[in-house]
Amino acid sequence: MKRERLIDFYDKGIVTISGLISHGRAEAFDYLLGEKTQKFALESEKAALDKIILSKRPVISVNGNVAAIAGEEIANFAKKYEIRVEANLFHWSWERIEKIVSMFEQFDLAILGRNQKERIPGIDSPRGKCEREGIFLADTVVIPLEDGDRAEALKRMGKFIITIDLNPLSRTSKSGDISIVDDLQRAFANFLKFERKDFNGKFAKYDNMMNLKETLKFIGERLKSIEKWPQE
Amino acid sequence: MKRERLIDFYDKGIVTISGLISHGRAEAFDYLLGEKTQKFALESEKAALDKIILSKRPVISVNGNVAAIAGEEIANFAKKYEIRVEANLFHWSWERIEKIVSMFEQFDLAILGRNQKERIPGIDSPRGKCEREGIFLADTVVIPLEDGDRAEALKRMGKFIITIDLNPLSRTSKSGDISIVDDLQRAFANFLKFERKDFNGKFAKYDNMMNLKETLKFIGERLKSIEKWPQE
Repeated sequence: MKRERLIDFYDKGIVTISGLISHGRAEAFDYLLGEKTQKFALESEKAALDKIILSKRPVISVNGNVAAIAGEEIANFAKKYEIRVEANLFHWSWERIEKIVSMFEQFDLAILGRNQKERIPGIDSPRGKCEREGIFLADTVVIPLEDGDRAEALKRMGKFIITIDLNPLSRTSKSGDISIVDDLQRAFANFLKFERKDFNGKFAKYDNMMNLKETLKFIGERLKSIEKWPQE
Repeated sequence: MKRERLIDFYDKGIVTISGLISHGRAEAFDYLLGEKTQKFALESEKAALDKIILSKRPVISVNGNVAAIAGEEIANFAKKYEIRVEANLFHWSWERIEKIVSMFEQFDLAILGRNQKERIPGIDSPRGKCEREGIFLADTVVIPLEDGDRAEALKRMGKFIITIDLNPLSRTSKSGDISIVDDLQRAFANFLKFERKDFNGKFAKYDNMMNLKETLKFIGERLKSIEKWPQE
């Protein structure tokens, strides 16, 4: 179903060919995670929501795949918590920025992306474009399915980085202050289910390195439970 | 580089959109394998070549992704060992069959696929099409990047199945009598490097289930070597 949506968004010109291949990679990692939100992922999602609520200028970055996979959930979440969203593309074009901004307008959310006059230092044009009122001045950026170079550059800018990436070993996940290893539609659905009143300090106890270790341990153990799998 | 070739073959109409996504999945598993032929893979490749040499009617099945990734290596291998090759498509069309057959003709190899009048029992038309002189009467079939349904159906036909698939947990790999967990370009490059005279009985000692267990153990251990990875 998700794959069909990706292909649909490819036909609409929002997802690129590289985006389709990246999605395949994500599918493989989701398979290793059992295709559901595991305990460690839920913990990092709770820490992330807590941090987002504590932040002064949190921004969610969306690219073509993100829009295709979880556009509606992100719009609902951004409206509920009044968080800015910015369209940011790896294969940048005005046309794709415009399509993503328009798509969110259909979800009744005005997002940033049409006025990208600032730059992420160290990222070649036009990949480094961003808006002053969005990613450029953000204290916390949520970067689902982000490219490794850009994730590292945002980190060097001193921002607090929340990644959502199914590959716990990617450069993006390694750049995260909070690294959510979960499907991003599930992650935002979880964010929406959490109750705001429960969030005041969950982040303080969160250890991202420990969480990533648990993630890798889980995948490793899942792969080692091979006595059963030939009969699966 | 491999990814660019896939995109090039997509533009030529040989690789499909689904094929691009599947390639992404394969990339993820190759990453877990360290992007090289591991010891267990080399063992299964040696057993496979031995079995191919022992077989009366071995056939290699090629689809769009297979042609894109290792077309030339397969042509060279098939010529060296005089093995039949048959074009077999999941998203079947005359046009794509024709393009793949023509591509192999450019490598000086006539392959099967234009006369698919037989059927693989249990596989809905036109996915089940195959040639009498090819897959239908084969004793051993080499199925790189094969769909799980078709792999299982070929197995039910009583054929000896050699799979080449980077996902050791796929239904295709589980259907294999010999399951090669390696990139297929590397696998065929290895087949070409082996010397025919060294092959007479390597298959007898080969234990596929043990080999798959070693594969999963390797991936699990690689994932658990996490003390180092944050610095990688």
